[in-house]
Amino acid sequence: VPVGALESLQSNINYVWIVITAAMVFFMQAGFVMLEIGACRAKNTINIVMKSFLDFCICAIVFLLVGFGLMFGTSWRGLVGMDGFWLSTFGADHPIWVFWFFQLGFAGVSCTILSGAVAERTKFMGYLLYCALFTIFIYPVVGHWVWGSFAGTFGIGGEKGWLEALGFVDYAGSSVVHACGGACSLAGILAVGPRVGRFGKDGTPRLIAGHNIPLVALGVLLLWFGWFGFNAGSSLSGSGVIGRLVVNTTISPAAAGLAAMVAMWFIQGRADVNIAMNGALGGAVAITACCGNVTPAAAILIGLFGGITTTVATIALERLRIDDAVGAVPVHLACGWWGTLCVALFDEKGFSIERLGIQALGTFSISLYAFISCSIIFALIKLVAPTRATEEEQINGLDFSEHAANAYPDFQTTEQA
Amino acid sequence: VPVGALESLQSNINYVWIVITAAMVFFMQAGFVMLEIGACRAKNTINIVMKSFLDFCICAIVFLLVGFGLMFGTSWRGLVGMDGFWLSTFGADHPIWVFWFFQLGFAGVSCTILSGAVAERTKFMGYLLYCALFTIFIYPVVGHWVWGSFAGTFGIGGEKGWLEALGFVDYAGSSVVHACGGACSLAGILAVGPRVGRFGKDGTPRLIAGHNIPLVALGVLLLWFGWFGFNAGSSLSGSGVIGRLVVNTTISPAAAGLAAMVAMWFIQGRADVNIAMNGALGGAVAITACCGNVTPAAAILIGLFGGITTTVATIALERLRIDDAVGAVPVHLACGWWGTLCVALFDEKGFSIERLGIQALGTFSISLYAFISCSIIFALIKLVAPTRATEEEQINGLDFSEHAANAYPDFQTTEQA
Amino acid sequence: VPVGALESLQSNINYVWIVITAAMVFFMQAGFVMLEIGACRAKNTINIVMKSFLDFCICAIVFLLVGFGLMFGTSWRGLVGMDGFWLSTFGADHPIWVFWFFQLGFAGVSCTILSGAVAERTKFMGYLLYCALFTIFIYPVVGHWVWGSFAGTFGIGGEKGWLEALGFVDYAGSSVVHACGGACSLAGILAVGPRVGRFGKDGTPRLIAGHNIPLVALGVLLLWFGWFGFNAGSSLSGSGVIGRLVVNTTISPAAAGLAAMVAMWFIQGRADVNIAMNGALGGAVAITACCGNVTPAAAILIGLFGGITTTVATIALERLRIDDAVGAVPVHLACGWWGTLCVALFDEKGFSIERLGIQALGTFSISLYAFISCSIIFALIKLVAPTRATEEEQINGLDFSEHAANAYPDFQTTEQA
Repeated sequence: VPVGALESLQSNINYVWIVITAAMVFFMQAGFVMLEIGACRAKNTINIVMKSFLDFCICAIVFLLVGFGLMFGTSWRGLVGMDGFWLSTFGADHPIWVFWFFQLGFAGVSCTILSGAVAERTKFMGYLLYCALFTIFIYPVVGHWVWGSFAGTFGIGGEKGWLEALGFVDYAGSSVVHACGGACSLAGILAVGPRVGRFGKDGTPRLIAGHNIPLVALGVLLLWFGWFGFNAGSSLSGSGVIGRLVVNTTISPAAAGLAAMVAMWFIQGRADVNIAMNGALGGAVAITACCGNVTPAAAILIGLFGGITTTVATIALERLRIDDAVGAVPVHLACGWWGTLCVALFDEKGFSIERLGIQALGTFSISLYAFISCSIIFALIKLVAPTRATEEEQINGLDFSEHAANAYPDFQTTEQA
Repeated sequence: VPVGALESLQSNINYVWIVITAAMVFFMQAGFVMLEIGACRAKNTINIVMKSFLDFCICAIVFLLVGFGLMFGTSWRGLVGMDGFWLSTFGADHPIWVFWFFQLGFAGVSCTILSGAVAERTKFMGYLLYCALFTIFIYPVVGHWVWGSFAGTFGIGGEKGWLEALGFVDYAGSSVVHACGGACSLAGILAVGPRVGRFGKDGTPRLIAGHNIPLVALGVLLLWFGWFGFNAGSSLSGSGVIGRLVVNTTISPAAAGLAAMVAMWFIQGRADVNIAMNGALGGAVAITACCGNVTPAAAILIGLFGGITTTVATIALERLRIDDAVGAVPVHLACGWWGTLCVALFDEKGFSIERLGIQALGTFSISLYAFISCSIIFALIKLVAPTRATEEEQINGLDFSEHAANAYPDFQTTEQA
Repeated sequence: VPVGALESLQSNINYVWIVITAAMVFFMQAGFVMLEIGACRAKNTINIVMKSFLDFCICAIVFLLVGFGLMFGTSWRGLVGMDGFWLSTFGADHPIWVFWFFQLGFAGVSCTILSGAVAERTKFMGYLLYCALFTIFIYPVVGHWVWGSFAGTFGIGGEKGWLEALGFVDYAGSSVVHACGGACSLAGILAVGPRVGRFGKDGTPRLIAGHNIPLVALGVLLLWFGWFGFNAGSSLSGSGVIGRLVVNTTISPAAAGLAAMVAMWFIQGRADVNIAMNGALGGAVAITACCGNVTPAAAILIGLFGGITTTVATIALERLRIDDAVGAVPVHLACGWWGTLCVALFDEKGFSIERLGIQALGTFSISLYAFISCSIIFALIKLVAPTRATEEEQINGLDFSEHAANAYPDFQTTEQA
């Protein structure tokens, strides 16, 4: 029995593991759609469905043709990949496909984060253009910085990105996926402005309540389910390490959901469902970077602060009159930062100030690059297509104005004042 | 270390792979239910739930007792299996069970396709009778033609069906599962007639809008998630080939969703949500037969044409006054044909006209057999139970007339004019 | 090639298998939430979401810190474990984490069962206190009795619980998880009393209809999907045995759903959707204990009686004026008993009266312990926080009275008379 036979079996275990976890990551698309639908008003439902469904379609095609190569191809000075496009010359059983499928799930998640942030006032075509450009100019670039060498074992690229070379660690993407998507969300919100009616003339915030809370709950649980694949699948190997990865991905969101619920109870005097749910997601984002090198005991603390971070950031954004329809910035940007720092703060092998500095540099660089590029992209899109729906379009709802349809024609719906 | 030990490990990898992908295929039942509910009117919701839930229950029992043996048992002239019924003599750890579970998922999908096509006017009992008869006389027969030898390694049957012997290839069932279910759908639609109000007295089509678009979106994403199991699980082995299978199952639906959206935009002047969703499903059906022998680059083309096929077929059916409530015929029959031909058209090893002929013969034979048998079955069912709800029953809704219940008692609902 | 290398590969297969099935079990949380939301009134939706989401969060933290050790630690006289708390000293790739994650899913299921039973009239804080106490004093104790030795291979505990030592078999938890949760449900129902309006002044039962049947269907299908992980994952090994486990988990619910539908048709004259769905769940509960040692043929019978048991128990409870909002007691307690007895009644190796006695003793002991402890817990909770919402709170709905929010602000809702 040659040793190669054993390696081949382990490869097969890994393929099964990666494909299934990648399918779970794909399934997070359903979570994002359900969450965004539920957290917005009934009159924008079809628009949300269209956006969230087609962004993945665009992302998949673009990532095959361009994005993957920019992320994992031969490195140009650690900044961006330069080959590995198209891929269709690789054979039917080449391991690159398993890896591509897993990476696409991540690109798709990062791409769709902005959707919820700018929901209820963004034009359909403008959003689709953003998705294509994001998958070319933003995600693969920051991805290359951190994970650029990862396709080396599959015969593509293999040189480290500049952050990777510095020792920056982001196990499953608190920065690469979440802070990146969250920074784009912030740029997008600033580009399209708040929803009509979200702030009074004197700037007083007015609640726009989500219209379908069961779908919010479903969305959050779908996301949590997918997150087990997201974090544990990032091991890229079916082996003993996957256990603690999923345990951490359980404990941190659980602690965060409780912390956010209690925090809001102190502030508002009642348990708020959206904050508890978003808190749990914030805990999931936070553990994403550090799930590989912290203990479950640390995951409790990471989650507790993640949940509080989400709560505080949500309140702060509202005070700043930044209208984030689903709370994407608190969850993905703020907790993305927090989780990236936790890699150094809670490392089971001990704390080092130098490492904390590298983590801070990395998440700051990624967020800044994403924010600036996204701002430029929105400015360019505005040259060819409007990005903000008019006041009349928003009042009528995007379903009517963009798609001439009604998501619930058999129900009597009312307009929120 | 004996070589047998390695084979045993590979078997265990395969068992894990098949059981999990089969569970994902089972989960497509949830996708079909959600899609059908959302695409129909509120007043028929409970009827849809009952049909779609109990059809799987019936299918499972019948497939255990009869269907599996007809499909995989010792062949009678390549036409149908003749043993392998009941199965309960096989031991607790026999590999037949893993295979049975996977195959049941496929039977269940094929069985439930008709449900959506004839929704909102078909009687409950008549539909359940159809499901039992479909799982005996239709699906296992065409399945035997193409995959009849597949249980040979588990000690059952092993001789090829007549299409299989000709070299017909249908990797995961564009014809066996989808065109079969789609042809039955067409026969069922012709047997029960259009919904009251779907066409005016002069034949002008009138839109009957789906009442819950979030559930349509959820259903389509559940189906897509399950499709990764459907296509990649059909490898029946956890090995390197599963990667490109899932990549193709990503790329083709993505391209198809975009193509259908753009095609309808050209035709109607706006992006239609149902067409985009059904387009993606059409792309998934199309790649199902050929996911094993085409490149992802070809999958883009297969998907593009699949999406356009879905759009065109949807419009054509409406012009022919064929009332397909959810678009089952465009998605499953038309794209089932297209995908089966793509096995020859886009084979990475090159095109052969002879092969194209065999593929055309196969999908035509399967569709014709399914259409005729289903027509006979509906004619027979009508002898014992009505299949079409009366005008009054349809106007009141099947929930009230068949189940004396209301799916949404706390909501004010309105009747679509 | 050392033999250890083969064992290591098998371990990796097992880790992949257990983590994925455990994620499926986690996903059952979404099933429970959707089912409970759909089966209750719109005005209590947010309360249900909050309860069902946060109970898992609490359960996860408490199970890490205390519950797991009580269940699997060094045994005190076969009654309860005494160490193995906290766990965070175990390394990143220790197999205990995989096992913990799987076990948490089970604890979470058992914990959330009561939620539906006492829905629509139970105070939020009181319920959360119950969840923490359940995960300390009830579930780990009965779990220790039956599965107490299971963590021995991971270096924790290893001595048998008293029922385990007697030869009591509960493969995946018909008693440990379901009868335990069901007995607590009964105790909880008696502690908080029926919903306002559920029984007239003369005791006549009045139907309180579920407000969102699509979510009930989604919930049941999510639960069934997760149940494949629940039962087959309990093998804790990726090997040939997993096939028949999933087949049995298909056949029994399918037969049960049909049986319950037919039974209710005889009794009521129409097919009832809730009974058919709950029947299938009853069939799933019933096969849970015995899926490892019965044939699929026996699974048909187990399911048929499980479905009828659910139907009869539902009617009986109503006659006894016990108000179980979702049917948790018929599904989890009655079918939990039935399934536990089936281990002896349908054992493929033959029937023994002695074994039946042990099974009866086991499920009775577990149910009695759970019932009494839960009654005490509710009595204690009442000392610090009210458990029953007032009549006014119930009439206004718990969403308004407990959370000052509305789950469907864009829809016109009506109050069920």
